[in-house]
Amino acid sequence: MRMIDIIEKKKKGEVLSREEISFFVTGYTKGEIPDYQASAFTMAVLFQGLNKEETAILTDCMMHSGDVIDLSAIEGVKVDKHSTGGVGDKTSLVLGPLVASCGAKVAKMSGRGLGHTGGTLDKLESIRGMSVSLSREAFIEQVSRDGIAIIGQTGDLVPADKKLYALRDVTATVDSIPLIASSIMSKKLASGSDTILLDVKFGSGAFMKTLEDAVTLASAMVEIGKSLGRDTRAVITDMDQPLGFAVGNIVEVKEAVETLRGRGPKDLEELCVSLGAIMLDQAGIEHDPDKAKALLRQKIANGEAYAKLKAMVRAQGGDTSQLDDPSRFTDVAGAQAVYAPKTGYIHAIEALTVGEVAMHLGAGRATKEDTIDMAAGVVLHKKIGDFVKEGDVLATVYTNKEEISPIIDMFTRAFVIRDGAAKQNPLIYTVIE
Amino acid sequence: MRMIDIIEKKKKGEVLSREEISFFVTGYTKGEIPDYQASAFTMAVLFQGLNKEETAILTDCMMHSGDVIDLSAIEGVKVDKHSTGGVGDKTSLVLGPLVASCGAKVAKMSGRGLGHTGGTLDKLESIRGMSVSLSREAFIEQVSRDGIAIIGQTGDLVPADKKLYALRDVTATVDSIPLIASSIMSKKLASGSDTILLDVKFGSGAFMKTLEDAVTLASAMVEIGKSLGRDTRAVITDMDQPLGFAVGNIVEVKEAVETLRGRGPKDLEELCVSLGAIMLDQAGIEHDPDKAKALLRQKIANGEAYAKLKAMVRAQGGDTSQLDDPSRFTDVAGAQAVYAPKTGYIHAIEALTVGEVAMHLGAGRATKEDTIDMAAGVVLHKKIGDFVKEGDVLATVYTNKEEISPIIDMFTRAFVIRDGAAKQNPLIYTVIE
Repeated sequence: MRMIDIIEKKKKGEVLSREEISFFVTGYTKGEIPDYQASAFTMAVLFQGLNKEETAILTDCMMHSGDVIDLSAIEGVKVDKHSTGGVGDKTSLVLGPLVASCGAKVAKMSGRGLGHTGGTLDKLESIRGMSVSLSREAFIEQVSRDGIAIIGQTGDLVPADKKLYALRDVTATVDSIPLIASSIMSKKLASGSDTILLDVKFGSGAFMKTLEDAVTLASAMVEIGKSLGRDTRAVITDMDQPLGFAVGNIVEVKEAVETLRGRGPKDLEELCVSLGAIMLDQAGIEHDPDKAKALLRQKIANGEAYAKLKAMVRAQGGDTSQLDDPSRFTDVAGAQAVYAPKTGYIHAIEALTVGEVAMHLGAGRATKEDTIDMAAGVVLHKKIGDFVKEGDVLATVYTNKEEISPIIDMFTRAFVIRDGAAKQNPLIYTVIE
Repeated sequence: MRMIDIIEKKKKGEVLSREEISFFVTGYTKGEIPDYQASAFTMAVLFQGLNKEETAILTDCMMHSGDVIDLSAIEGVKVDKHSTGGVGDKTSLVLGPLVASCGAKVAKMSGRGLGHTGGTLDKLESIRGMSVSLSREAFIEQVSRDGIAIIGQTGDLVPADKKLYALRDVTATVDSIPLIASSIMSKKLASGSDTILLDVKFGSGAFMKTLEDAVTLASAMVEIGKSLGRDTRAVITDMDQPLGFAVGNIVEVKEAVETLRGRGPKDLEELCVSLGAIMLDQAGIEHDPDKAKALLRQKIANGEAYAKLKAMVRAQGGDTSQLDDPSRFTDVAGAQAVYAPKTGYIHAIEALTVGEVAMHLGAGRATKEDTIDMAAGVVLHKKIGDFVKEGDVLATVYTNKEEISPIIDMFTRAFVIRDGAAKQNPLIYTVIE
């Protein structure tokens, strides 16, 4: 078998066999197939696509290119949730403890962010003493005992995807639905949970800009999961404005805590309860959606969900007193208000711009080597639909940087204020299963 | 400027600027742009194409990536002809001396073949003592004095194409009309002749399989030449059966000599006279096609064309006694006849198969390191339209190899013999200018 013939076949729009796809994944991972053939191949895939079966086979081959985590030692249904990423998305920090408090098992391996803010791991590390590096044994023991652990990747998961994604990133071949879907799903499948819930976000602040693209991607991923025998569902959610009020690291941890204590932003709570109900169905804990939502709300109200977060943080060496008293978190040198330039209704808050503002304030990484300022970030005071008067405070920015007036200006322009009431988008558009 | 943005732009089907194309060609030639970006880019070009202006700019940038030959020291119009390659194509050996005998200047740099038979250089080297390595000065002096020289490339011509073609060859991105056109034309333009005549062949034995593809490629090349101010024309010719009777190296030299002496195959003579008439028009020697053809035929009849070949061979150290007496060429250990398996009319002679037969007999190179057996090859006795009886000799094979019966079988199957007269294709389909 020769790689050039596989490229030629895909270039002509023909369907590849399992042997051919496996030859590519194995050969590329081992370094036997050069980058220049892999990039020509991915560009051909970008134009010609992969059908459902090819996409599932690609995912399967990538998943098995490295370690596959075995969670069978943990009793109960191991549930996992993955978000395609958005601005202010602290869902994992809320949802994990919430469903764990209902009896689902959350054995989550998460990633670091290379974006506007840190990823879930970075956010957790903003809690003093918190470790996200656990041995495989300690991880399994903690999930068995406490029902939840969130750690960094252990072992060599999906090396094929690491190599291929790095190549796609520099050859303009990222935006292929089957390649995105197989990249995400190979990692989720290799990390070993029994069920997968995908939160596919769309809108100005998400990777997918339109509802149609989000549905296409979600459907592709659900198809892969089904083909490979894993209970996989997806929700399509709005990312036309940041989720909740906080965008950063410490500010998002604080907001997650508030939400688990029943005092969080309504949109974040609604999203977590809705996603949680699906996960409880997947876990076989409660199949009736209304009863599931009631159970989740009860766990927030009676403090058990918050207690789960604290149990996890304690088990991983973190200082839970910071959670109980958020003033114990590191603070920034200066906070500054952002004012409404005119009177009217807020029609839009450009999520992407808000993310870039947070990044400029120090909350994110532009390159792997960058250091995150955990205390930097923004907190919105108003969201879409709110009425504001000229001079009202729209948001507060937290930063250790000086001379941030260009960033403040940029932030101010992210708010679209007009006369007349604003239409609010639904938070959840549809569920794909 | 970043290569990834250029790939992205072409991927989306947008038009690239001169700066962007130049950035790619210069950066890739210098090794600053990696192969994996170049291959993703060429695959994007394969799908999205290049418009006429982009193709001309790409050609111009490639042409100037290395040396550009200056032939201005030679008086008169320097004419060049390029064939896209076919089986039994010894046109250059006939046409060069023929037009030179009419006063056109032929300063030809040719290539070696990596195909069924050697290229023009290999064929010339089958003449004892013949050298195709001349200094730039000796080359110019010979063309000025004798009107013709055919040598190997001197200097570093179009390094961008060398590198890019090698990459395309292993990434399934050869079959892009604008890339093929710019590759051929950049080399022709860099080798310095005033006029270019392209012989674009199509059919079973050619790179272009259909008339439509051949016309598209020819038009693209003529457009490039015009855009860059060079008199460029193209003829579309048939390659559904080998040209002439001989396929090999020595056998083709012998046939070229016979043709220059007025005793060659009719199709080869007709093609050379037709192409020659266009070249005489381009050279400003004779604009009337009928008069030009008459002049060319006269040069064959009066021996001046053949004398030109001998003058060139002598100037380049070759033994002209071999030309006068072909029995002086090296012979093979064995010649063997191929017989007609049935009675009927020849409807087809699969040119590609005949080429492969010649290669298996030793006449060509599969890799750069292979040695050519100059004496190996085939000579047809019948062509399309001929009537044969079962047992008639269809062809003779010349080889030093033993146990060639599978090759003989393969060769026999290349002849399609049926009842009823066969339709003959025209040799020249159209001229594009």
